[in-house]
Amino acid sequence: MKIKCGIIGATGYGGIELVRLLLGHPNAELTALSSVSFEGKAISEVYPNLFQICDAALVSADEVVENCDVVFASLPHGLSQPLAAQCAKKGALFIDLGADFRLESAEEYAKWYKAEYMHPELHDEAVYGLCEMNFDLIKTSKIIGNPGCYPTSVALGLYPALSNNLISTESIIVNAASGVTGAGRSLTQGNHYPELNEAYHAYNAGIHRHTPEIEQTLSQIAGEPIKITFVPHLLPVNRGILSTIYAKRGTKSLAEIHELYADFYADTTFVRVLPLGSYADLKMVKYSNFCDISLHEDVHTGMLIVCSVIDNMVKGAAGQAIQNMNIACGLKETAGLLATPPAF
Amino acid sequence: MKIKCGIIGATGYGGIELVRLLLGHPNAELTALSSVSFEGKAISEVYPNLFQICDAALVSADEVVENCDVVFASLPHGLSQPLAAQCAKKGALFIDLGADFRLESAEEYAKWYKAEYMHPELHDEAVYGLCEMNFDLIKTSKIIGNPGCYPTSVALGLYPALSNNLISTESIIVNAASGVTGAGRSLTQGNHYPELNEAYHAYNAGIHRHTPEIEQTLSQIAGEPIKITFVPHLLPVNRGILSTIYAKRGTKSLAEIHELYADFYADTTFVRVLPLGSYADLKMVKYSNFCDISLHEDVHTGMLIVCSVIDNMVKGAAGQAIQNMNIACGLKETAGLLATPPAF
Amino acid sequence: MKIKCGIIGATGYGGIELVRLLLGHPNAELTALSSVSFEGKAISEVYPNLFQICDAALVSADEVVENCDVVFASLPHGLSQPLAAQCAKKGALFIDLGADFRLESAEEYAKWYKAEYMHPELHDEAVYGLCEMNFDLIKTSKIIGNPGCYPTSVALGLYPALSNNLISTESIIVNAASGVTGAGRSLTQGNHYPELNEAYHAYNAGIHRHTPEIEQTLSQIAGEPIKITFVPHLLPVNRGILSTIYAKRGTKSLAEIHELYADFYADTTFVRVLPLGSYADLKMVKYSNFCDISLHEDVHTGMLIVCSVIDNMVKGAAGQAIQNMNIACGLKETAGLLATPPAF
Amino acid sequence: MKIKCGIIGATGYGGIELVRLLLGHPNAELTALSSVSFEGKAISEVYPNLFQICDAALVSADEVVENCDVVFASLPHGLSQPLAAQCAKKGALFIDLGADFRLESAEEYAKWYKAEYMHPELHDEAVYGLCEMNFDLIKTSKIIGNPGCYPTSVALGLYPALSNNLISTESIIVNAASGVTGAGRSLTQGNHYPELNEAYHAYNAGIHRHTPEIEQTLSQIAGEPIKITFVPHLLPVNRGILSTIYAKRGTKSLAEIHELYADFYADTTFVRVLPLGSYADLKMVKYSNFCDISLHEDVHTGMLIVCSVIDNMVKGAAGQAIQNMNIACGLKETAGLLATPPAF
Repeated sequence: MKIKCGIIGATGYGGIELVRLLLGHPNAELTALSSVSFEGKAISEVYPNLFQICDAALVSADEVVENCDVVFASLPHGLSQPLAAQCAKKGALFIDLGADFRLESAEEYAKWYKAEYMHPELHDEAVYGLCEMNFDLIKTSKIIGNPGCYPTSVALGLYPALSNNLISTESIIVNAASGVTGAGRSLTQGNHYPELNEAYHAYNAGIHRHTPEIEQTLSQIAGEPIKITFVPHLLPVNRGILSTIYAKRGTKSLAEIHELYADFYADTTFVRVLPLGSYADLKMVKYSNFCDISLHEDVHTGMLIVCSVIDNMVKGAAGQAIQNMNIACGLKETAGLLATPPAF
Repeated sequence: MKIKCGIIGATGYGGIELVRLLLGHPNAELTALSSVSFEGKAISEVYPNLFQICDAALVSADEVVENCDVVFASLPHGLSQPLAAQCAKKGALFIDLGADFRLESAEEYAKWYKAEYMHPELHDEAVYGLCEMNFDLIKTSKIIGNPGCYPTSVALGLYPALSNNLISTESIIVNAASGVTGAGRSLTQGNHYPELNEAYHAYNAGIHRHTPEIEQTLSQIAGEPIKITFVPHLLPVNRGILSTIYAKRGTKSLAEIHELYADFYADTTFVRVLPLGSYADLKMVKYSNFCDISLHEDVHTGMLIVCSVIDNMVKGAAGQAIQNMNIACGLKETAGLLATPPAF
Repeated sequence: MKIKCGIIGATGYGGIELVRLLLGHPNAELTALSSVSFEGKAISEVYPNLFQICDAALVSADEVVENCDVVFASLPHGLSQPLAAQCAKKGALFIDLGADFRLESAEEYAKWYKAEYMHPELHDEAVYGLCEMNFDLIKTSKIIGNPGCYPTSVALGLYPALSNNLISTESIIVNAASGVTGAGRSLTQGNHYPELNEAYHAYNAGIHRHTPEIEQTLSQIAGEPIKITFVPHLLPVNRGILSTIYAKRGTKSLAEIHELYADFYADTTFVRVLPLGSYADLKMVKYSNFCDISLHEDVHTGMLIVCSVIDNMVKGAAGQAIQNMNIACGLKETAGLLATPPAF
Repeated sequence: MKIKCGIIGATGYGGIELVRLLLGHPNAELTALSSVSFEGKAISEVYPNLFQICDAALVSADEVVENCDVVFASLPHGLSQPLAAQCAKKGALFIDLGADFRLESAEEYAKWYKAEYMHPELHDEAVYGLCEMNFDLIKTSKIIGNPGCYPTSVALGLYPALSNNLISTESIIVNAASGVTGAGRSLTQGNHYPELNEAYHAYNAGIHRHTPEIEQTLSQIAGEPIKITFVPHLLPVNRGILSTIYAKRGTKSLAEIHELYADFYADTTFVRVLPLGSYADLKMVKYSNFCDISLHEDVHTGMLIVCSVIDNMVKGAAGQAIQNMNIACGLKETAGLLATPPAF
């Protein structure tokens, strides 16, 4: 019997990517989809790629909660908490693609998101759904905060290094670049085609909301507080994130570091440590749940350079959310997520 | 038990798309892949998107023929015929993504391709693999000429109109535009990124080799010789073909024509006749085996305008080839081909 | 002494392109720029490319009319007529980049634009500013309707053919494709970067408002009423229009037609008839006022195929508007318009 | 009287950009263009954007040297030195867009380029043509090593900071991204359209040949040896470089640093220090000789972040080369270089 899945906010970019992936999931049934803006319409009217594939009518969020065993929410921050409470009451698994259940500290949440934790007990219960790190916690969880896209790429990129004390925890710099879907479906002048095409720039330098989330994870891994300098950029492509990470390397050689990385991720399916000499390219993981990592060094300055790429909409959002569902529901971790990334 | 599939010319764009799709096919096993240029290398060295997914070593064409029950060839014209002969001898199904088995007339082939049919008997046996038209023939065929990308979009776009005498067979004009993968993996100055990016132009106006193939199919449908004016263009996108087709409409109204089209394709999975008022967009079929058709009219000139889009690498190449295999092998026609096209 | 130029609607795409070109014009001075949305702001706040080059504050439309000798208006249809009246009163030259002064027939305007001619006498006086055709009329005009982008490319593409009776006036088909700037600066879902990138589709098939304008010009050239089938498409590039035009050719050979075209435009600067065998590519005219024309034929159907490309923002809007000013003001026709189109 | 200018290597991307800019230069005459690959052809056959604008036949390098007063060379490293010697002999100004005259140390050149300085005396004489830094030296120079594209963006981005001791000289990190024209006109698989489109990756991390050039300039500015970590990336756009530079900030506040930057560049035309809060975007300098700089900080780590953008083909190559000519020939520094960057 298939799991009854529902999506709240199904017409946003995260939501519609969930639709795409769940339609191909062998153990999931798309039971209900909600949208505030398009309630009553067929989802294929909003996204014609779904015509004759999924013509379900969009319903209310309440109907999703009522009828589903797993509820995915892909909403602006602040809106997920009451829904998580509803799901908790009825015993449904709640997976939040937004920011409401990522930060452990209510103070940090208040500082970065200007809002409060409405149900502190839910936050105690919630698990941060970085699958390769928190697998065991996720297995028994009912509320999962799905990681942000940048944080996923950075945490996976540094996890082996910080676990094995391969780098200094001081002065880590993360230069990241994201495709435009990361900014969502809402119209802005900056994402109007003629203004973004053939453009490239940084934004939110040193003040992006993913900073505390990244630092929280890195600090947990390292067992000590870590601060990073994080500067995201906007790429004129649809999908993908490349985080180029700079850290002072310790005494291990690059070859040793590479071996440790490869061993560290040997049992995972979705993290691929590329051969030395290769460069992680966001093109190679598009439409897939893979995270590719390549390792480099600057011999004359002693810096380790880690390139970590994901598809921001898959491993950075909908794909990892499904991976979380798989783990929490006792399915095969990779179910529905093994489509080969296309070459072009 | 899975079908042993092999690909000759696996590192070309058609070949690598076959690899991607066959890796996700429930009844197929990728048994052997050949490449003249990269024999001996792992295919994932050439296409790093396959790293840890398919690291098979590339072999010779002979090894593919020897070890497989279904052989796909994705080669320049002229090279498939000896392979088809080898397959015929051992009883393997041969599906040719190139041009060698598309034209019924050896004279036309000689005229357009400057080459001869080496084994005329094979050509008598071969079937033109336009699945929605030749389903029954394909079922019992051992040599299939997989249709060209432009011909697929045009034939599906006009099939109901010509079957139902909805248009004049005179003065049909096909204005088509293709993404760059249609030109293949070989390097050319015109497809060097800075020269194609932000560019757009026609090419081979009135002299493209797909012209006789299109005319052959349309003439068969109409039961009378049809000549078309065909002008392809090169689009600065990776994938997709839009054929905008102009034909003098008969007495039926647009609404009637639309209904006839919808009925005509009601039992197919992969051809979607869009609601009146929608425009077929190549974005909506990317990475999928769908062909979307939209219908329009110019009231003041009496022209019917048909927009027909496919992904040139899927329904226009590798996807339709697999659809042919499914039919010829008695599998579900849609096996391995139902991935939802992504919204972006 | 420089001509005092003003732009009403300076922050739209047509307006800002006028700013760019006039800043490099040897005989023009940018005296006043207006914007309803951004009045009071520096134009470089809206368009940072102008920072420290042109930081002029945006004013009201009245101030533009008051202070300038040449007034360019780049506005939605319906808004230019009162401004033209104001300019007429004070004797300023008025050049309208919108649609208000393009159609001679008030009935046609009413039919396509659902609006009326407020000052019929102004329309009697106005000249259609297709420079290569109406040079002498423009010289003495005070109100100029600057041609639309598609109409410019089509009219220049067919002007020699229709003047010389080289083609049938029946069944002319225009398949055109435009870059996104043609749709302007206003935000729409369809022009949101992730939805347009890697996309391509037709729109307004058979019902585009440029149809009557094209037909008006072609009919004037031919001396008989001409109807065309016109289908525009949206290209995922910023700039440029390619019109691929299909017409039944008469008795002249392609070589003779080419010679007639080359002779016809021999004395113009901005229309370049490419050598036979070349294809007009919109890349080759970007950022320039050139119109490139290439000629092709389909021998087996007897069709002439004309490819005509312009930069929709230059020859299709701001550049031709300046060319009109040059002619009307007795300047060198090419003044400020001779920048070489970049190769990439 | 106009200066007789010649270009050796005119059909490469740097060369053809020189052609474009020099055609619009009021004091320059394009006297001779050479190309090894296309000698004898008209340059407009190779670059059809030049049709009827510049149809000059390509000649030999010797003819360029012979007939010109200013010789620009845009060649692979190693090939410029004999030409510089020829020019020195006849007293012509030689401006090298390649790498042969950038490094002061023959050892560094040998280490990074695996080649030797053939005429050491020429290197003593040569000036590094970073115009905003070496203006006075350039004025009297006859051999100018035009800076590399990345080095230009980095040096201009850090010049005020290092001159004023605003940052630590330790641990400077440069994360740069370049458009594809930086890789030139030669065909490579990686720059084949379908493989680069929608892609993004780092390359030559820690080992790019521009590293010693950047360090040489920064060390000269700071008056002490500086080492940097430099990682370039390839952007799927045609033009532009963004260098995002990370440095430990001293005691000055961001506002003070911004003021110092603005003052520092107040007398220059081409370096624009953007208002605080803006982000330098490569789109805003395309096709122009401007370098835009924006300043940011990460308060919680104490890092200064400098974003510096140029058009790699203009300020990073042909534009700066012309700026050097202007200075060395006593022309207005900005002659031929004031075209407004387009908004789109």
